[in-house]
Amino acid sequence: MRALFATPFLALLAFPSLADPLPSWNAGDSKVAIISFVEAVTDPASEDFVPVHDRIAVFDNDGNLWAEQPAYFQLLYAIDVLKQKAADDPSILGSDVLKAAAEGDMEGMMAGGVEGLVEVINVSHGGITPEDFKASAYDWLTTTPHPTTGMVFSDMTYQPMVELLRYLRDEDFTTYIVSGGGIDFIRAISEEAYGIPPWQVVGTEGNTSYSADSGTPTVMKDGGVSFVDDKEGKPVGIMRHIGQRPIFASGNSDGDFAMLEWTTAGDGPRFGLIVHHTDGEREFAYDREGHIGVLNRGLDEAGERGWTLVDMAQDWSRIWMGNQ
Amino acid sequence: MRALFATPFLALLAFPSLADPLPSWNAGDSKVAIISFVEAVTDPASEDFVPVHDRIAVFDNDGNLWAEQPAYFQLLYAIDVLKQKAADDPSILGSDVLKAAAEGDMEGMMAGGVEGLVEVINVSHGGITPEDFKASAYDWLTTTPHPTTGMVFSDMTYQPMVELLRYLRDEDFTTYIVSGGGIDFIRAISEEAYGIPPWQVVGTEGNTSYSADSGTPTVMKDGGVSFVDDKEGKPVGIMRHIGQRPIFASGNSDGDFAMLEWTTAGDGPRFGLIVHHTDGEREFAYDREGHIGVLNRGLDEAGERGWTLVDMAQDWSRIWMGNQ
Repeated sequence: MRALFATPFLALLAFPSLADPLPSWNAGDSKVAIISFVEAVTDPASEDFVPVHDRIAVFDNDGNLWAEQPAYFQLLYAIDVLKQKAADDPSILGSDVLKAAAEGDMEGMMAGGVEGLVEVINVSHGGITPEDFKASAYDWLTTTPHPTTGMVFSDMTYQPMVELLRYLRDEDFTTYIVSGGGIDFIRAISEEAYGIPPWQVVGTEGNTSYSADSGTPTVMKDGGVSFVDDKEGKPVGIMRHIGQRPIFASGNSDGDFAMLEWTTAGDGPRFGLIVHHTDGEREFAYDREGHIGVLNRGLDEAGERGWTLVDMAQDWSRIWMGNQ
Repeated sequence: MRALFATPFLALLAFPSLADPLPSWNAGDSKVAIISFVEAVTDPASEDFVPVHDRIAVFDNDGNLWAEQPAYFQLLYAIDVLKQKAADDPSILGSDVLKAAAEGDMEGMMAGGVEGLVEVINVSHGGITPEDFKASAYDWLTTTPHPTTGMVFSDMTYQPMVELLRYLRDEDFTTYIVSGGGIDFIRAISEEAYGIPPWQVVGTEGNTSYSADSGTPTVMKDGGVSFVDDKEGKPVGIMRHIGQRPIFASGNSDGDFAMLEWTTAGDGPRFGLIVHHTDGEREFAYDREGHIGVLNRGLDEAGERGWTLVDMAQDWSRIWMGNQ
């Protein structure tokens, strides 16, 4: 009997170390740093051991889990919804900003600043239940082709990051999205795209109200913005939703700096990760300049702060979840 | 060999139905209704089966999971903190409301209305990190005797409700607190008292900010109130934190009406539970009148809406978690 069981038993023991948890990550410093950290915090014999309860990892979304060029996907969605609504009722385009948005004139739309964007959001994201909004966003994300790659937007998540999320969860981390994007927009796809349920999404929030006056108890998205989950807002959003400091944070722009700074300033083992967009051929190359995903401070200080700077061109053997 | 294994195997099979999941609930309609619901939604062969993902249960806290008389525990804590701060620095008592509060003069404090309460909250709950605040609240809750029962406050959770929370979790529900009380105050004790981690607490929120200017990256409670998780705010808070409608809701006052109404209006099997404070001997008897936990509409409409009205005196064989 011993001979019969010996082989599978040994194979079972050896299996975890044989399987590569991050197959789309090339061998190199980034991969070594991630795996060393995870092995240290999950090994009960390690002085860096962290109990399951405290294994909380937070991830920015735009430019970190999926692409954000030539503009945030949510903005492209808002413009498409606005166009569609204006086709039915042109009178909704009551300002220059809305007219510019409906014509896909990005510059004209951006000229309205934050107030202009809120106008666009109000008309495109307001007066709808979260359920209907999520159905609309899901439909758009899974059927609309991206303007330059031709892939549907939902295929433009990063395969290596999806592997990282799964690896962390396999090691009993809880993974959260903490995004400057709209919470309901991300929730529309987070479970399917990342395996992250709605209650583990933190994001920018709009005004919402409840009423049963119509006879059907309903929560409605009323437009406007009640909480901006960006920059210094990210640690605030984390404390509000999660209630404790994470031990692992990942982002790609200076909008994530406060989140990484606060996460890695805690006691015990900590991990900060920055995705650096270095791959102009397979993805988009950008950092210090532009209107989206600007990365200056993170690039300057990652080294001294001990954060891992991921070089997309070097570190990732594959970019997209979808097949191009 | 068969004989050797037959008995333990059968015992194992029979065990779940032998064990009473709600030992502090007397036999009766309430207990039958709860167990029938849970068995129906967890039986894959039942037409009422609900997948684990959607088994979300929400519980009010004050008067539903622990007592709320003669005043909300958080208010009694705020007064104690105020007294202590005023002993060190009497100049902080800059208004009649604050003076009344520091003297424990409830009526004088209430005369200031909501604005007065916010003043008390600002002075007692502001200018402190959430971590320090939680440590202070935890210390107070676990050492301060209640004015009439003499038990420490943290012993005044309801044993039958703690059993219900555990039963639901054993059946793969996720249990949330959804309270008009302060989110950080509840988080100070929720894990120890109810087995509910901080990220499953929804509550009223204060203004919070992040800064690294001091050299130590810090999230601070700044005082003020940014979101009131009561009445129509409860469905809003649930959508914000959880992102989907629960299938089970439990409360005790008309502040929970909207939450129960919205929860039970969804498709498929739903459960609404109201804890009715009928036990003046072991707990406190109150419903339609008073300044706390007023229950009118819930009492009038529970029957027609199919909600289970729990009679504390009749349905519960034991009230407190702590030993009196």
